[in-house]
Amino acid sequence: MQIAMIQDEIVPMEEVGSVYLDRGVFFGDGVYEVVRSYNGKVFALEEHLQRFAKSLAAIGITKVDIDEVRARVQQAFDTAGISNAKIYFHITRGSAPRNHVYDKNLEPNFFLTVTELADDTEAKNKGIAVSTHPDWRWKRCDIKSLNLLPNVLARQDAAGKGCAEAIFVDDAGLITEGASSAFFGIFGQRLQTAPLANNILPSITRGFVIEANKNVGLELVEKSFTPAQAADADELFIAVTTQDIVPVVKFDDKIIGDGKPGSSTKQLMAEFQSLVL
Amino acid sequence: MQIAMIQDEIVPMEEVGSVYLDRGVFFGDGVYEVVRSYNGKVFALEEHLQRFAKSLAAIGITKVDIDEVRARVQQAFDTAGISNAKIYFHITRGSAPRNHVYDKNLEPNFFLTVTELADDTEAKNKGIAVSTHPDWRWKRCDIKSLNLLPNVLARQDAAGKGCAEAIFVDDAGLITEGASSAFFGIFGQRLQTAPLANNILPSITRGFVIEANKNVGLELVEKSFTPAQAADADELFIAVTTQDIVPVVKFDDKIIGDGKPGSSTKQLMAEFQSLVL
Repeated sequence: MQIAMIQDEIVPMEEVGSVYLDRGVFFGDGVYEVVRSYNGKVFALEEHLQRFAKSLAAIGITKVDIDEVRARVQQAFDTAGISNAKIYFHITRGSAPRNHVYDKNLEPNFFLTVTELADDTEAKNKGIAVSTHPDWRWKRCDIKSLNLLPNVLARQDAAGKGCAEAIFVDDAGLITEGASSAFFGIFGQRLQTAPLANNILPSITRGFVIEANKNVGLELVEKSFTPAQAADADELFIAVTTQDIVPVVKFDDKIIGDGKPGSSTKQLMAEFQSLVL
Repeated sequence: MQIAMIQDEIVPMEEVGSVYLDRGVFFGDGVYEVVRSYNGKVFALEEHLQRFAKSLAAIGITKVDIDEVRARVQQAFDTAGISNAKIYFHITRGSAPRNHVYDKNLEPNFFLTVTELADDTEAKNKGIAVSTHPDWRWKRCDIKSLNLLPNVLARQDAAGKGCAEAIFVDDAGLITEGASSAFFGIFGQRLQTAPLANNILPSITRGFVIEANKNVGLELVEKSFTPAQAADADELFIAVTTQDIVPVVKFDDKIIGDGKPGSSTKQLMAEFQSLVL
């Protein structure tokens, strides 16, 4: 008799709920997005849905109607009635007995949460500390997949050092990005971040930072830099959907600038807010 | 109101089953093993449990009693009553609202299946075709984690080419291993496979191949080789728990030897069986 065991309970295989056979848990075989709302309106939903569609296509999940995803996000957001909300959603390839090779006719599984999002005012006002971690991720970080164990391990390592984010450093000694954020340095009048490639998530917030900078006027340079260069930057910040721009005032053991959010970062934060509202 | 949406159904957050909040699906935050039985006896369970304990420790899941895992595996196997069984089990860090950083007191989730395992006699008698794929995996493949999307994509690519396994090739142009197997070449009297390192799973079956070879007497060389070298090998095979040794008779477009399982591979297969029975 084929069986499953869930915690310490034995269940005949035919009675195992499909959620236990989700390829999401067997393989991380799915992709996700996080969007947020500002004051009752979901921000940049189309950009996130476009990226979601790209991620789905990249891993060959073809049976998803993005219009339906959009409708579900909107319906869930409206139902929750949370003005400043964080909306997480993922789609996995579906549920089936475990086998690497998949049936293309599997029905994808959809899961979404809408939760309260409190802006972390202290982090934004005072800045955060970050720590570096080797970039152990796979080679297709341009796909926003559920294979996030290296991100978890890096974030936990950072948390153990009292840091709010981990900054990945690749084998060449170059910073790629944060474990769940894009990473920027300001060197004089230069705004620098790693170029988009297979080892970088095409961050939506990164795009809005670049947009916000049009009114600040720093020279944008998409070129990777090293931890030593970061430690010597005039200003540093991370960019992430849930918090937009958060100043970084400590990089490993090095205090950045005078240990307070820098003036260009504050200008970018203000310009970002004007894009949002 | 914080809510979740499962497929198209909205559920208040407090009513969402913990299985939907499994860090296994959010992050692939867990590790797994596959063991098999031969004729009513689980093979090499201790070796697999030792590796499982190492994987758990490597990702910081500390609240697992390996004796309890052993007891569950044995209980499930006994209950199933399948003589030649495949036993899959995983442990994830636990269930919680999604957050990279985790609470060390989370209760891990255990899941196991026992299913019928039919030896693929045709594959063993005739050999299989394999195809190469870039090794997109993370940098800690020595940890048997649930982050298996690159393995899925490679296996699906191979299946599309009529191949039974994908063989990973790293950025340096060297073969690491199969998407779910170890990979060996025989060059004259030399038995060659990649050395164990962070980019290779310490395969239990690989260890038994090396053990079986003591009675065959090939010279073991643990050194990586290239796809071009593999295509010129006298014999090739994969080693995997569920099938032990399976000869490879086609490597990408190249027929290996005379297109039939080679004599040294067949000797290793026979010696492997004597270890098992």
